[in-house]
Amino acid sequence: MPRPALNVQSKSLILPHPLPLDSGEALEGVSIAYETYGELAPDKGNAILLCHALTGDQFVASEHPVTGKPGWWERMVGPGKPIDTDRFHVICANVIGSCMGSTGPASDAPDGKPYAMRFPVLTIRDMVRGLVGLLDALEIEQLHTVVGGSMGGMQALSLAANFPERAARILAIATTARHSAQNIAFHEVGRQAIMADPNWAEGDYYASGKTPDAGLAVARMAAHITYLSEAGLTDKFGRRLQDRAEKTFGFDADFQVESYLRYQGSGFTRRFDANSYLYITRAMDYFDLAEEHGGLLANAFAGTTARFCLISFDSDWLYPTAESRHVVHALNAAGAPVSFVELSAPFGHDSFLLDVPELDRVVKGFIE
Amino acid sequence: MPRPALNVQSKSLILPHPLPLDSGEALEGVSIAYETYGELAPDKGNAILLCHALTGDQFVASEHPVTGKPGWWERMVGPGKPIDTDRFHVICANVIGSCMGSTGPASDAPDGKPYAMRFPVLTIRDMVRGLVGLLDALEIEQLHTVVGGSMGGMQALSLAANFPERAARILAIATTARHSAQNIAFHEVGRQAIMADPNWAEGDYYASGKTPDAGLAVARMAAHITYLSEAGLTDKFGRRLQDRAEKTFGFDADFQVESYLRYQGSGFTRRFDANSYLYITRAMDYFDLAEEHGGLLANAFAGTTARFCLISFDSDWLYPTAESRHVVHALNAAGAPVSFVELSAPFGHDSFLLDVPELDRVVKGFIE
Repeated sequence: MPRPALNVQSKSLILPHPLPLDSGEALEGVSIAYETYGELAPDKGNAILLCHALTGDQFVASEHPVTGKPGWWERMVGPGKPIDTDRFHVICANVIGSCMGSTGPASDAPDGKPYAMRFPVLTIRDMVRGLVGLLDALEIEQLHTVVGGSMGGMQALSLAANFPERAARILAIATTARHSAQNIAFHEVGRQAIMADPNWAEGDYYASGKTPDAGLAVARMAAHITYLSEAGLTDKFGRRLQDRAEKTFGFDADFQVESYLRYQGSGFTRRFDANSYLYITRAMDYFDLAEEHGGLLANAFAGTTARFCLISFDSDWLYPTAESRHVVHALNAAGAPVSFVELSAPFGHDSFLLDVPELDRVVKGFIE
Repeated sequence: MPRPALNVQSKSLILPHPLPLDSGEALEGVSIAYETYGELAPDKGNAILLCHALTGDQFVASEHPVTGKPGWWERMVGPGKPIDTDRFHVICANVIGSCMGSTGPASDAPDGKPYAMRFPVLTIRDMVRGLVGLLDALEIEQLHTVVGGSMGGMQALSLAANFPERAARILAIATTARHSAQNIAFHEVGRQAIMADPNWAEGDYYASGKTPDAGLAVARMAAHITYLSEAGLTDKFGRRLQDRAEKTFGFDADFQVESYLRYQGSGFTRRFDANSYLYITRAMDYFDLAEEHGGLLANAFAGTTARFCLISFDSDWLYPTAESRHVVHALNAAGAPVSFVELSAPFGHDSFLLDVPELDRVVKGFIE
């Protein structure tokens, strides 16, 4: 069914200049695939850039072309919604390194074959460079707001630090300015699971017809646990059995939580490229905004004139409130205007994607 | 070097009767491999049974025959130590289902071939039945104390509930009376990692010479994260790099925490059987002491005359203090004498194995 009120457009463009990367390499002919929602004002002052999370994509408020599922933030983005597409022109681009149309390891290299592991290792700042390249191409000098949750929040903070003139407001949700040892550890488990899958074949699986689904599913399962809270898992599943009255004394998914995780793992493999998972988790693990700026996070924000809003969730143990508070302290030290709220929600890290009415109010209030 | 003061003896026996299992099956010709330390008193009143954790074994205070490393609780068990082998006769047996000499999936079935996945799915109570079979064979009617941490604590609680006359004191450390949804979820990730490894071959890998090391290593890595606290990982590794000054922009183990996890994973595969990992994690996931006793945990302890001590650690997020408190409340409701202490230690779940002097004092005090 068409959704004329959303005025959604799926677009793609190729950046006209090579993209310099933190590794020292440069990426040529970079494609950026993106969606827009709502009209861009004549003065281009109403553009909001949404930055997606690790396994997210540009399909914020439109049906996913692979899964057919609704967009990942339909509850937040649309006509009359907290990010109101009747007022704002919302842009969301697939990050480079990903697999939904922007250049990534599955894309063809200049030799006509997929990059695979020849793709350069990226950083969050490199992803932001790609997004700024898109803004340049669209001739949007300053965003009304940049918004992101989780890895999207890292991009929002990185954009504020590295391209301070490009956004008037920064809204960073359930995120961190650096990946912790525990964050890195969980990602490394996922990478090892993928690379242990013989179908991974050192990353050269695109022509084989055999993708490392088993490894990618395990990676997704491990990560998925970190997105939920212990209490949320107990509420949702507890020790309830899956479609059976008794334990089977076997290795099928007796418990609902097992069945759920297996479903999450296998579903993910149908929409995501395993090499993209390697590259994007690596970028997140490399992320340390202070390190990029002389070791002091406040330095990262020295040049900013933007207003900031940080939101954390009390049940988020992946990027707990202390990480947001750390950013807030740095912004205070840099003299930047910042508001901060810790919301109470039972869903763990995933709270930013779920039904948390207070989140809607804070988002709407900040971008007014 | 001999350690005469320890008076360690490595033994093995075959239970004379078939072992009935919760699944309804029975296991015949069950071998129990065990170590003892210290002299058994003529009245047999000084026997302490130590129950080991998921990946532990009977080598509590003697060199591990595969790794050559010291026993896993040498700091706790020995002459003059908190569990003093000059006074107590300490027994530690490899649980059934494991792989260090007691009957498990790698053992030969009656047809002369390894059980592999024909091995029956066990429960914690089945493991305890095996241990009680050992006590019967040793003609030890009542233990002075049964002690266990983690899965060992589950066995201690199960023994108290199901064989209340067999122990005068129950010391359960860093444990729980039921596996939570999150506990099950992490184990399921590990099992899926093993079963995704083509070398697993539906469990029939013993004759192939190819073991599912990659999958087992991933399982171990995921589990290992749950044994440590976030703060402990940050203190130990933070974002420090491994033997390099700069990030490599590649997928080697740039970070110390990655290198550490890989080491933990690969080391584990040299001493542990993947099928045993499947069976033992399944037993832990099935563990719900209340469920076995009409749904009310207090009922599990209705027949007990033992004294209990529960110890938790404030940084343990695998079996957090609330789980121990839940057991304490049930013991209170059952009228059982119980002491409970939450210790402060930075090492997460692994605190029970590490240098926590207050733990030594509590253990020593309880078994006096």
